[in-house]
Amino acid sequence: MPVVIARLAPKPERRQDVLDLYTETIPQIHAEPGCELFALHTDGNEFFIVEHWATEEDFQAHVRGPVLATIRKVLAEALAKPSEINRVDSIPLGEATKGVLRPTGGE
Amino acid sequence: MPVVIARLAPKPERRQDVLDLYTETIPQIHAEPGCELFALHTDGNEFFIVEHWATEEDFQAHVRGPVLATIRKVLAEALAKPSEINRVDSIPLGEATKGVLRPTGGE
Repeated sequence: MPVVIARLAPKPERRQDVLDLYTETIPQIHAEPGCELFALHTDGNEFFIVEHWATEEDFQAHVRGPVLATIRKVLAEALAKPSEINRVDSIPLGEATKGVLRPTGGE
Repeated sequence: MPVVIARLAPKPERRQDVLDLYTETIPQIHAEPGCELFALHTDGNEFFIVEHWATEEDFQAHVRGPVLATIRKVLAEALAKPSEINRVDSIPLGEATKGVLRPTGGE
């Protein structure tokens, strides 16, 4: 169950462009096979994304797909520094409903 | 709905200690009022935590509580560099079930 935790620091003057980019593309990402979670967050300056994919194959198809290519093209100019993309694995601890991002995903 | 995305870089020789710490304390955190998600992840070296709290008051009670005090005490010696604790807010986009960490939390 691939999990991705990403952090993006936009140039201040391009922050709205990055928000517009995700407003446009997240519905498309949610429609990709195996996308179980793709959730955007912000601390007011930077963006933080938490993703959960059903299988490694689904995640790799997303990585190679056209939507992410579009995103990369915009981010290449809009970020103040390289994005931090962390491909991680869940360590399920405690309650099943609170210890993993998507309990029904079957860790 | 407070969301926290944290990143912890343990000293290599203390990595197991940090894992043991969370193995012990996550069940206690899950039992704290308003804890809807506290999920541990790793890339093999660092740890990544994603948290979702029902209310700001619940989150602040956690921050001031005894379990986090215990965690801070261990981390103060076990990390290779200061922890990154990012208090963020959800930007709900796309499908309600895939665009936020906890759809039933009521963004």
